[in-house]
Amino acid sequence: MKNTFGNNLCLTLFGESHGEYIGGVLDGLAPGIAIDDDYIRSQLCLRRPAGKISTARQEADEYRIVSGVFEGKTTGTPLTILIPNTAQHSKDYSATRALARPGHADYTAYEKYHGYEDYRGGGHFSGRVTAALVAAGAIVLSALKQKGIVIGTHIASCGGIEDSNFENLSAEIAALNTKNFAVIDDDKGAEMRAQIEAAAADGDSVGGVLQTAILGVPAGVGEPWFDTVEGVLSHALFSIPAIKGVQFGDAFAMVNGRGSDYNDSYYISDEEIKTATNHNGGVNGGITNGMPILFSCAVKPTPSIFKAQNTVDIFNKTDAVLELKGRHDPAIIHRARVVVDSVAALAIADLLVTRFGTDWLRLPLVKGAVDNVD
Amino acid sequence: MKNTFGNNLCLTLFGESHGEYIGGVLDGLAPGIAIDDDYIRSQLCLRRPAGKISTARQEADEYRIVSGVFEGKTTGTPLTILIPNTAQHSKDYSATRALARPGHADYTAYEKYHGYEDYRGGGHFSGRVTAALVAAGAIVLSALKQKGIVIGTHIASCGGIEDSNFENLSAEIAALNTKNFAVIDDDKGAEMRAQIEAAAADGDSVGGVLQTAILGVPAGVGEPWFDTVEGVLSHALFSIPAIKGVQFGDAFAMVNGRGSDYNDSYYISDEEIKTATNHNGGVNGGITNGMPILFSCAVKPTPSIFKAQNTVDIFNKTDAVLELKGRHDPAIIHRARVVVDSVAALAIADLLVTRFGTDWLRLPLVKGAVDNVD
Amino acid sequence: MKNTFGNNLCLTLFGESHGEYIGGVLDGLAPGIAIDDDYIRSQLCLRRPAGKISTARQEADEYRIVSGVFEGKTTGTPLTILIPNTAQHSKDYSATRALARPGHADYTAYEKYHGYEDYRGGGHFSGRVTAALVAAGAIVLSALKQKGIVIGTHIASCGGIEDSNFENLSAEIAALNTKNFAVIDDDKGAEMRAQIEAAAADGDSVGGVLQTAILGVPAGVGEPWFDTVEGVLSHALFSIPAIKGVQFGDAFAMVNGRGSDYNDSYYISDEEIKTATNHNGGVNGGITNGMPILFSCAVKPTPSIFKAQNTVDIFNKTDAVLELKGRHDPAIIHRARVVVDSVAALAIADLLVTRFGTDWLRLPLVKGAVDNVD
Amino acid sequence: MKNTFGNNLCLTLFGESHGEYIGGVLDGLAPGIAIDDDYIRSQLCLRRPAGKISTARQEADEYRIVSGVFEGKTTGTPLTILIPNTAQHSKDYSATRALARPGHADYTAYEKYHGYEDYRGGGHFSGRVTAALVAAGAIVLSALKQKGIVIGTHIASCGGIEDSNFENLSAEIAALNTKNFAVIDDDKGAEMRAQIEAAAADGDSVGGVLQTAILGVPAGVGEPWFDTVEGVLSHALFSIPAIKGVQFGDAFAMVNGRGSDYNDSYYISDEEIKTATNHNGGVNGGITNGMPILFSCAVKPTPSIFKAQNTVDIFNKTDAVLELKGRHDPAIIHRARVVVDSVAALAIADLLVTRFGTDWLRLPLVKGAVDNVD
Repeated sequence: MKNTFGNNLCLTLFGESHGEYIGGVLDGLAPGIAIDDDYIRSQLCLRRPAGKISTARQEADEYRIVSGVFEGKTTGTPLTILIPNTAQHSKDYSATRALARPGHADYTAYEKYHGYEDYRGGGHFSGRVTAALVAAGAIVLSALKQKGIVIGTHIASCGGIEDSNFENLSAEIAALNTKNFAVIDDDKGAEMRAQIEAAAADGDSVGGVLQTAILGVPAGVGEPWFDTVEGVLSHALFSIPAIKGVQFGDAFAMVNGRGSDYNDSYYISDEEIKTATNHNGGVNGGITNGMPILFSCAVKPTPSIFKAQNTVDIFNKTDAVLELKGRHDPAIIHRARVVVDSVAALAIADLLVTRFGTDWLRLPLVKGAVDNVD
Repeated sequence: MKNTFGNNLCLTLFGESHGEYIGGVLDGLAPGIAIDDDYIRSQLCLRRPAGKISTARQEADEYRIVSGVFEGKTTGTPLTILIPNTAQHSKDYSATRALARPGHADYTAYEKYHGYEDYRGGGHFSGRVTAALVAAGAIVLSALKQKGIVIGTHIASCGGIEDSNFENLSAEIAALNTKNFAVIDDDKGAEMRAQIEAAAADGDSVGGVLQTAILGVPAGVGEPWFDTVEGVLSHALFSIPAIKGVQFGDAFAMVNGRGSDYNDSYYISDEEIKTATNHNGGVNGGITNGMPILFSCAVKPTPSIFKAQNTVDIFNKTDAVLELKGRHDPAIIHRARVVVDSVAALAIADLLVTRFGTDWLRLPLVKGAVDNVD
Repeated sequence: MKNTFGNNLCLTLFGESHGEYIGGVLDGLAPGIAIDDDYIRSQLCLRRPAGKISTARQEADEYRIVSGVFEGKTTGTPLTILIPNTAQHSKDYSATRALARPGHADYTAYEKYHGYEDYRGGGHFSGRVTAALVAAGAIVLSALKQKGIVIGTHIASCGGIEDSNFENLSAEIAALNTKNFAVIDDDKGAEMRAQIEAAAADGDSVGGVLQTAILGVPAGVGEPWFDTVEGVLSHALFSIPAIKGVQFGDAFAMVNGRGSDYNDSYYISDEEIKTATNHNGGVNGGITNGMPILFSCAVKPTPSIFKAQNTVDIFNKTDAVLELKGRHDPAIIHRARVVVDSVAALAIADLLVTRFGTDWLRLPLVKGAVDNVD
Repeated sequence: MKNTFGNNLCLTLFGESHGEYIGGVLDGLAPGIAIDDDYIRSQLCLRRPAGKISTARQEADEYRIVSGVFEGKTTGTPLTILIPNTAQHSKDYSATRALARPGHADYTAYEKYHGYEDYRGGGHFSGRVTAALVAAGAIVLSALKQKGIVIGTHIASCGGIEDSNFENLSAEIAALNTKNFAVIDDDKGAEMRAQIEAAAADGDSVGGVLQTAILGVPAGVGEPWFDTVEGVLSHALFSIPAIKGVQFGDAFAMVNGRGSDYNDSYYISDEEIKTATNHNGGVNGGITNGMPILFSCAVKPTPSIFKAQNTVDIFNKTDAVLELKGRHDPAIIHRARVVVDSVAALAIADLLVTRFGTDWLRLPLVKGAVDNVD
């Protein structure tokens, strides 16, 4: 369904970098979910560029919810978020329009849209559109939290520096979700920032890996074929610009080991079934097993760099050299983190609503609530 | 849509390991596509276990197409494939039913289906269901080939041994697609097989990485958000049992480099736009750029091992020890290869049909055909 | 999604009149629903032709469920029904192939499938495919009945003769569901049969109106735009061959009255909200109001008649005259009745499962059950 | 998919009567379609109330397109339309909130949304939302027109008065599409208006039948089961408030005739296949036959009347009497006409794009264009 995602909780994204608004329509939300504007703002703030390691473009991200909310709560009808674009530069994009930026969508957009695309600032492909994802995700994240489901992401590596591993998930997620630069070990974070600044100084950029945990999802969610938890999450995650790989649990590490190293053995704890390890990232056979859902996203180095690059003139089909100017992020991984959380929230909420019904997100969390609706 | 995949070319999978049939319904195929039974059989043969490195269960895989084909060609109405299950062991699965096999879907199925699931041999979760994927995929693969699109996969690593990299894609894919053990470098293949046999001798298993290339897809296919090429392919690929990670191009390698290392610069070759490198795997901004689509799948070590494993009795909620007996694969990566090709064919064909219309798969390939429909 | 219907409970239909099997895959059913083979058989029996007023083609309709059922209950994984075609005549359809039967899909199929369609006996367009709808519908109907939801249809008019109106819905539905010729007033039924026989004697055919009631659906099901109850039901109902009109409540009668005649006023009865009349057929604003859902389908006269008809040779594009021979129904309305019930069951169950979650169909009906899951 | 319609050309509707905006997101449009603002405005004007026979609420309907259009043409990315609500009365809806208006969605919304719905002026159920349908439809209608496809609707009956039948479709449609009160015979139109005014004088309302023709759709569009032309069109049409019945061709008239009366015989005209009559409304077996697509919608009398009506207090569950005040339409059929055209355009364009590919709507119409893309 093109720019719409979800079977029962659906988000439709729209907007271009230099259009009037970017935004989204979120349909299938239960009625009665409280809108926490402070939280939405704080999430948008985490996505916004800040300091030397980000682009100088600053947007207030003053979102407005223009439908689907009444007296501070969701109505259950489509919820529309608008975020005005206020900081577009008026520079003449047409001058460099013909030169496709390597690693960007300029050329592919041209092939798809035959030159009718809004090319200014990346148009509909701009990372700016993720602000709408974050605003919509914030609403879903706060609804999930009421149900005991929390999501958090850390920068597992950036510029070759690795963060500590998750050890105490609940506490670490709580801490990460308030940090601008989301690492477990702030010393490693400082090293990463130094790498980003070094790349920026070279007119270059860096990438990294984001690792995400989702806690509190009951066992038994997902489908055996096609709509597996991994399939649904990855489908949504690959929308995030610069994400080129998604692994669940220890996927790319497991490939070099043996089954006996990586089968997560079961045991009983407090009458609940747990796994002793979680190499499979909380999913077996496409379905949740009640353990934390763990996945990692490979974020490629930002393609906007200031070094001269070989490219082509897409209209005249001639070779050319491109030297970008203007405002660009030397890294987006620290900003992409909250986008990952938002997308994960949307995808997992869709699976939960499919399983437990439209109203589930609104229902009070009581001991055994999941069993009740069974 | 649960066990159905695709927007315009849709596959619905059904069946259990020990039921009467496994199979699939393929809807949205153009009419007039010739059915090549030899090719379908040869593809099924590549999936079938063979020799010491596979399970001893042997199935003839005598598929029947019971709808949607008339006088040897597709009719354009739903095409149904049935594959009878003939080699089920009559052993009493109920004896070990309560003990969830680690790394398998036994426990998650129980949570989802409340004990009503057909637990024999993995039921609907069985890798056996992939035979239907392969048969359906073979039909699509041969249609794509008529359009100049070919797909091939090699075992990039297995048991810690790495194959050579792709260098000459067309020739290597042609060779790979006839091999039972799909490696570019057969010496490396021999080492991998030795690793598999060593694991088997230990009652253990190994995994690996499959790398796939899709050649001939025109630029401009895919959507910017959600239905990105990466999102649609990964959604489908994660259905394949044991696949836990998917990366496009050099994703997990790129994370440690800089933008200047990995931006694929453009140049003109024979009046066509090409990239000098292909770290992005043929996709920018979710849309094909006309270069080969490259992706890799992490295949975890087969969870069925003969070593004693800690587990639980899911009914009585007590700790237990499981010792598997019977027929199991010490590796499935060599068999999963053709499943990956099949799933990739289905997903990419769906994107092409969405873009170019229902009949596109049947149309003759002529120079500029893609432009014609533009 | 072409030959698939449903968002959360999905049916995919396949098969051709003269192929090996017709059938369907039903996905999204709750696990644990008991399969009542006697009921499925009795429903198929109601669809089968009988006596002078139907075609002479007789099929045993010996369905087989080849996946998704284990130990007599649904597993929750895709349930596949196969019905073999056993009574195809071996006559040479190719002789008359070129002559499009008026009122049939021969010509439109040719335009869509370019001549690759299986033209024998109507192919995929054959009413025979409705046997799969009925078998799938029977499974859903018996699940709905466990939840207190019953569906019944009467032949409201046929050949110009009108049946009595519904008055005592529960009792009348119970009686109708056991009748081969479903009328409330059997005397009127006898007159209708006389009309059918008279038409048959003339080599002609008749049509009529089927009126359906669905009892027991709770208020609050459906969506305000697009996935309205009316929209979802009609979408599915128009699949039934010969149905060309669908109205809810008294639609085509209401057009000549005034609001004050047809607004269904509310009142309280036993602490429940009811409407005094039900001109709106149990749906307001696309959403159920808890009253019986009432709709009527216009069934056109069967297009297969024995009179000479003007037509064309679709290959040579010349005028021609067609004289049909063989076995044809002078009326299908009495057979279509059970198809309507089946399709209605599928559509309404999909809406319920979307609202209340996957497992709802299996849950025991208890007083206030709907509130429980709220 | 709830408030979204379409498989390949999708519209998502949002907004409430008294919210900030109503609007829609249209995704899947080909790039390069010219936006004709004059035409959009004129279509919105046809929907707007006018004179004595409509509500006194007047809205400027000053739509804004905030994404998906660049330099006056569609970009191919999601196109978002916003229409501000400017004329809401500030009256205290809460006073009468508890009293469900008969024939309206107040009570069903309450059951679905548990009291969280925006109840002011009908909220998301308001006919006001159809302004967004009309704006989106206008864009599609003008694109279809470039392809030779035109749509027109007349008030076939209203208040018991019948318009003339279609005779010369092209000319009549051209005339109808400029009329505020769309009848073929303006004398009959005057009689209808008199009926509406008489009802208004009584504090009452009237309904009627709208008949629509779609010209220029090639043969071979639609699916045999489920996504039939009738199914897809009716699914969308039933979203329009007050539409309770949809028939294709002469459905509810055919039920009383014989096959020989209503089979549309074929003949050759100018080497094209035509039908001599069009009782089937241009669709056989769910697929277009190239003749005009004809359908009729039953529009019930507007439920908002000024007469005292019995109803209930939905909170206290007590009987009550309701006397509506304020602005209401004594008939909406003349305003609904352009909504029907808009919805029909969206549904038929979706079927065409599914068949012929994303770009079809933009392609120049040339003789044999349909064959070209085959």
